[in-house]
Amino acid sequence: MYEDRIRRPALMNKLMSADQAALLFKDGMTVGMSGFTRAGDAKALPAALVERARQGTPLQLTLLTGASLGNESDGLMANAGVVARRMPFQADAALRRKINSGEVMFIDQHLSETAEQLRSGDLKAVDIAVIEAVAITADGGIIPTMSVGNSASFVQQAHKVIVEINLSAPLALEGFHDIYVPAARPHREPIPLLTPAQRIGQPTIRLHPDRIAAIVITDSPDSPSNALPPDDETDAIARHVITFLEGEVKAGRMDTSLLPLQAGIGTIANAVLHGLVDSPFRNMTMFSEVLQDSAIELLDSGHLAMASASSITLSAAMHQKFLDNIEQYRERIVLRPQEISNHPEIVRRLGIIALNTALEFDIYGNVNSTHVGGTHMMNGIGGSGDFARNGQLSVFVSKSVAKDGAISSVVPFAAHVDHTEHDVDVLVTEWGLADLRGLAPRERAPRIIENCAHPDYRPQLRAYFEEALLGGGQTPHVLEKALSWHARYKREGSMLVK
Amino acid sequence: MYEDRIRRPALMNKLMSADQAALLFKDGMTVGMSGFTRAGDAKALPAALVERARQGTPLQLTLLTGASLGNESDGLMANAGVVARRMPFQADAALRRKINSGEVMFIDQHLSETAEQLRSGDLKAVDIAVIEAVAITADGGIIPTMSVGNSASFVQQAHKVIVEINLSAPLALEGFHDIYVPAARPHREPIPLLTPAQRIGQPTIRLHPDRIAAIVITDSPDSPSNALPPDDETDAIARHVITFLEGEVKAGRMDTSLLPLQAGIGTIANAVLHGLVDSPFRNMTMFSEVLQDSAIELLDSGHLAMASASSITLSAAMHQKFLDNIEQYRERIVLRPQEISNHPEIVRRLGIIALNTALEFDIYGNVNSTHVGGTHMMNGIGGSGDFARNGQLSVFVSKSVAKDGAISSVVPFAAHVDHTEHDVDVLVTEWGLADLRGLAPRERAPRIIENCAHPDYRPQLRAYFEEALLGGGQTPHVLEKALSWHARYKREGSMLVK
Repeated sequence: MYEDRIRRPALMNKLMSADQAALLFKDGMTVGMSGFTRAGDAKALPAALVERARQGTPLQLTLLTGASLGNESDGLMANAGVVARRMPFQADAALRRKINSGEVMFIDQHLSETAEQLRSGDLKAVDIAVIEAVAITADGGIIPTMSVGNSASFVQQAHKVIVEINLSAPLALEGFHDIYVPAARPHREPIPLLTPAQRIGQPTIRLHPDRIAAIVITDSPDSPSNALPPDDETDAIARHVITFLEGEVKAGRMDTSLLPLQAGIGTIANAVLHGLVDSPFRNMTMFSEVLQDSAIELLDSGHLAMASASSITLSAAMHQKFLDNIEQYRERIVLRPQEISNHPEIVRRLGIIALNTALEFDIYGNVNSTHVGGTHMMNGIGGSGDFARNGQLSVFVSKSVAKDGAISSVVPFAAHVDHTEHDVDVLVTEWGLADLRGLAPRERAPRIIENCAHPDYRPQLRAYFEEALLGGGQTPHVLEKALSWHARYKREGSMLVK
Repeated sequence: MYEDRIRRPALMNKLMSADQAALLFKDGMTVGMSGFTRAGDAKALPAALVERARQGTPLQLTLLTGASLGNESDGLMANAGVVARRMPFQADAALRRKINSGEVMFIDQHLSETAEQLRSGDLKAVDIAVIEAVAITADGGIIPTMSVGNSASFVQQAHKVIVEINLSAPLALEGFHDIYVPAARPHREPIPLLTPAQRIGQPTIRLHPDRIAAIVITDSPDSPSNALPPDDETDAIARHVITFLEGEVKAGRMDTSLLPLQAGIGTIANAVLHGLVDSPFRNMTMFSEVLQDSAIELLDSGHLAMASASSITLSAAMHQKFLDNIEQYRERIVLRPQEISNHPEIVRRLGIIALNTALEFDIYGNVNSTHVGGTHMMNGIGGSGDFARNGQLSVFVSKSVAKDGAISSVVPFAAHVDHTEHDVDVLVTEWGLADLRGLAPRERAPRIIENCAHPDYRPQLRAYFEEALLGGGQTPHVLEKALSWHARYKREGSMLVK
């Protein structure tokens, strides 16, 4: 039984239930789990840990992952009090509440940096790694499932490794992964990746089999993507982006294969990529952190030659399609550790076009990606900073308003800054696109206001900017009013002055 | 005459006065000038351009440099109306006024990125390059003087190249420089630099001699550094940093040679390095953008094995000492293009300890490096972002108060954000050091307040944080009061509540 999944017979005696494996955990431990944007997350151990905590065992863990988990695992663990500290990303409503109430300490990190900080000892070492796998090979290699995330680094560092073999993950996933982990600094070689398609590592996560402390069998599929379908506004955003990229091609700054594309997780970025199915661009590549439905559509339509990422997060229907045609995708998709998919060295070398979603941005182009109202965490910065800083073109997209117009995404002063104006080249809403390259802040403001803001908010923004100019400066502001829009929303339920 | 300086006889006929060379410039041109932190700047052409403008020729230029210029060139050109647009950095009082009044458009950039943006066409191409040189070699190579900056990229791109041969720059500077320029993306090889000492390029800036349009002879030395000497407060900051680094060695995260050091321009960073003369660290290296007096002291004391940078900016006395002993330094100093000295690929690979100066930082560790009162440009972000984002340790230093205590450098909310909390590991003032690694914002605040803020301001900061906690969130704030400290300073002349 399971001979195709556990190909090293000596490991069969490590098979146990998730409840048994959960006994390996001790209060205060640091745990590294697989899982990146709901893909490839460990399915059984989170539930088993919750159960152990419910039975009264104190179990306050520091939980590291690739990115967000599926199956409501983050929320279940948070509500059971299992998670004391969490990094580097999450996207769960229940965990979010615990974070914003101060019950869970959330350390929001650039996704390329967590593995580096573990390696350098800046973060406490991982005690136990829990890794979802398709199979364990005869030489003891772990074949990951639909994401790689930080799994290879967790395995490298952990004292004990628990492997969750997921029977619902097809054996045909073998060969999608390219596992390369940089050496410790300061004696590190260049990362030899020169193109999105290149493979530079091993197809499995290598470890000495003795380090596998437990093998647990599961069969639950990944949670499907919760990205919403495109709508009129995301279609308009996509059109603005495509027109802009056509201009870049005409100006000779790139050819019709563009530059490798990155697109952040979520509805708007997915919609923009979806729009490229109707674009004149051909033979494109992706070098991204997550592949959503749109990436598969572009591979199928032939617009996209290949795609590199750290995870694949699909809707249920697209997931089935992917499985049905998996052989076609294996040569065209590479799944990498997130340290490599997001690595500044590689992103800068390849010259990525980075498409990421903003919660809000200010009239000078500073972007808030994370904090609702400047204070409350939504998900986390994710890889947006890795790509926006180091790519050739940094594009942020947002709908111009939220809450039926009560919130303007374009504000005088970002109530939280994740990306500074230095790292933001282009801003796009359904109303238009602001190309900010080579502009000073005083030149950026009118372009952002007139091209991107909702017309209802433009008079207020113009008035703010004009008043700010009276005080002078490189980045004029009226400090007393800079955050007044957010305060007004909190007080009156709308940023709009009646 | 000048045979040792112009070693290609056919170029002798390009010799002309600065006034003649200034006739090559046309209104609206983009000009790339050598010069980085007052070192190696063109001395004659700025004055000649000012003179031409004074005589009535319209001459509104876009001026790019490495970083700041010496000789008040930036101010003279700004006051003469020669500079319409300026990037990527400046540090001149007169130009600063023109920037803050909106008369000069200043595009504040990460110093590693300007060359990249020129190469990709995101910025308008350089028409004329003006490069200070020690000499032109027989094969037409330009030997830079005390800085490299963006000179190699300007020369590569410019239609015309003007060389200023500075007779006060000794011929013995030949051999200090290592010129390597990355290829255009997306087909770029890894940058092969593996250690701070390695040389990967050519000793000169290569170009076809026909592209040299003019050679001008000068003999003015660089403006001396304007860094102030260490004082009690900078000594205290240095001691906190050294104690912290000793702890890193004890914890096994680095050995006594530490990791390659970067230190930003200016008094405080210079003082911190100066303090390392009394440290237990040996065989250190620097991988920085500028070498100040402290770097020479550390080379002389033997603490520092070698230093790599893009410029050398010294006091008059230290400059003389450097010249008197120049042969000793040639094997221990490498001068590189700023794209390489600051390159994310290299900074991340080497695992730099980055020491940069903050104007202010907030209780969560967001840093303002550039904007006085949130609106008025001081100098620019410079290379601080290149190093802070990509280094292993990102340390920001500041005195706890300015203006005799009327301004607290620790504030509830940074009035401008150049470095987000994601990129800030350690904060230091004369009062102490806050190690923020692995901490959530709610944990960072008390540590920053109690360790770094001036005791006079701690009660106010504690009160703000406590009130903010009532509203909850990952990063609690009272939006109505977040910028009130800056507003109070403007209104009442002090941030302190009486």
